[in-house]
Amino acid sequence: MGVVVPFEEKEDSAGISRLSGLVQQGMEDVNRIILSKAGSDVEMIPEVANHLISSGGKRLRPMLTIATAQMFGYEGAGHTQLAACVEFMHTATLLHDDVVDESDMRRGKLAARKVWGNQASVLVGDFLLGQAFRMMVEVGSMDALAVLSDAAAVIAEGEVMQLGAAKNTETTEDDYLAVIRAKTAALFSAAAEVGPIIAEASAAQRAACRSYGVNLGLAFQLVDDALDYGGSAEALGKRTGDDFREGKITLPVVLSYRRGSDEDRAFWKRCLEEGQIEDGDLEKAIEMMRHQGAIADTVERARHYGAVARDALAPLPVGEHKQALLEVVNFCIERVH
Amino acid sequence: MGVVVPFEEKEDSAGISRLSGLVQQGMEDVNRIILSKAGSDVEMIPEVANHLISSGGKRLRPMLTIATAQMFGYEGAGHTQLAACVEFMHTATLLHDDVVDESDMRRGKLAARKVWGNQASVLVGDFLLGQAFRMMVEVGSMDALAVLSDAAAVIAEGEVMQLGAAKNTETTEDDYLAVIRAKTAALFSAAAEVGPIIAEASAAQRAACRSYGVNLGLAFQLVDDALDYGGSAEALGKRTGDDFREGKITLPVVLSYRRGSDEDRAFWKRCLEEGQIEDGDLEKAIEMMRHQGAIADTVERARHYGAVARDALAPLPVGEHKQALLEVVNFCIERVH
Repeated sequence: MGVVVPFEEKEDSAGISRLSGLVQQGMEDVNRIILSKAGSDVEMIPEVANHLISSGGKRLRPMLTIATAQMFGYEGAGHTQLAACVEFMHTATLLHDDVVDESDMRRGKLAARKVWGNQASVLVGDFLLGQAFRMMVEVGSMDALAVLSDAAAVIAEGEVMQLGAAKNTETTEDDYLAVIRAKTAALFSAAAEVGPIIAEASAAQRAACRSYGVNLGLAFQLVDDALDYGGSAEALGKRTGDDFREGKITLPVVLSYRRGSDEDRAFWKRCLEEGQIEDGDLEKAIEMMRHQGAIADTVERARHYGAVARDALAPLPVGEHKQALLEVVNFCIERVH
Repeated sequence: MGVVVPFEEKEDSAGISRLSGLVQQGMEDVNRIILSKAGSDVEMIPEVANHLISSGGKRLRPMLTIATAQMFGYEGAGHTQLAACVEFMHTATLLHDDVVDESDMRRGKLAARKVWGNQASVLVGDFLLGQAFRMMVEVGSMDALAVLSDAAAVIAEGEVMQLGAAKNTETTEDDYLAVIRAKTAALFSAAAEVGPIIAEASAAQRAACRSYGVNLGLAFQLVDDALDYGGSAEALGKRTGDDFREGKITLPVVLSYRRGSDEDRAFWKRCLEEGQIEDGDLEKAIEMMRHQGAIADTVERARHYGAVARDALAPLPVGEHKQALLEVVNFCIERVH
């Protein structure tokens, strides 16, 4: 254990800037690794990969890996390589997701599949996943490999679960949570756990970071789903209402369907199960959800997981890194405003 | 090194039965592992996976892993787990391939994507790949992980290369070879190399098995491509002419295009580049190729790689396993008849 420095924990800041500052050096290395490892003699691979990689995602997941490794005094280079693996796994998932969801936009740009086709998106996703595993092997930590390969399988399981629940208004809040726990929270969790692993932190510290990651991931996804019924296109990088148009059953819908009248439920069935969406339906859906408190309560659920994420960090040493991770929780939730 | 038993090497047998017999016990374990690891609480996963897994592929790749591990006296259980990983990687590739190629049939059954859709095929492929890495981690050999993760990235690279070359009649024999070296031979090579790795064979023995695998894989793919212009649907598990209808540039086409008249080349451009295929065109293509010797010479090229594969085995101990591996080369090539 390091020296415990007295440090006042202010949680009122909602920014990501403290975290960004702490990991800046490491993230520069991560970006270099990403660019170099997305390279290939096969031209189309860096083209497709860089389209998405350079499209300005926040890189929150690899930042978690860098921060949690630094937090335990790690001084090697393995954390930047593992962080790049995490980002590759995320990018591969996005490429495949856009094919599965038939999405047109991603991060405010045309989705790769709209530029290079579904085929290239599937195959370049596969390449990035293969590269990620290659890079993990280079780092040589079997524990990190176990955590990340586990995440890879669980993420895909979550995506299949979501496909099975698609357009089904009978989906319960628990079903929905199982989906986002697998498809989103698993990678946040792995990203936050490989940091302490590479830094050889204790089992308790690993568990604390893992718990922080999974709950932050749940909060993040819940807010994302709320934003789809209320955020602006810029904040979201896709258009408001994409989930609605794709017939995706997210928590705002689950709550609205349960709280609504028979007439409201008929509306949801028509729009999401039958895909019969008319002009003005999205506005009607948002109005209905606002009235029922479905969006506000989705954010409330996110606050719950945010609180769990913050408490998970309690056993960890007080300091800049802990403070930054606490602020990220607020950042993820408060971006609704 | 084991005792070298005098053993006459007969290469005239073209069967796979010696290999099947030697690995039978191990393959029963592999099948059990495959069934159990393709399981998931998410119903659709085992449904899609088992559709393909139970459709009677020859399981040649995992058999190579079992045989090459046994050959060096391996007595643990890691080889069966690695063999199952190899089969999962192969199955994941097939699921994604069928989406990319828009194929309707696979191994004489409807392709999974025709039953459950492209979305499920992409995601279940991702799951199987994730599972494969999880299973490799369980085995705990970092060398095996390196070989298999390398193969995963190279296979995807090969598939993207093939996509880039699709419908391009200017593809050279070298371009084509680079594609099949990556998309097919890399997994044969990895399958044959993880056997000696888990058995802790020498570096020279590893290299011999790797070389055998890569050259066997090249021969296998060349024959597969020849069969598409001349085999029966049963032998192929897909219809003759699938490559033709999909505009795939394989070696028989590369040779025919080069050897043909201007008129012949115009025919290939119309059929493969423009996709304008009329009744009788496949028959015309086959007739042209026969006349030019394009199919026979594709098989000749396969024999070349088969010879390299056989010579690669020369430094390995004489015995049943070596004999079986030699016979597999003939089996792969002679299935054209």
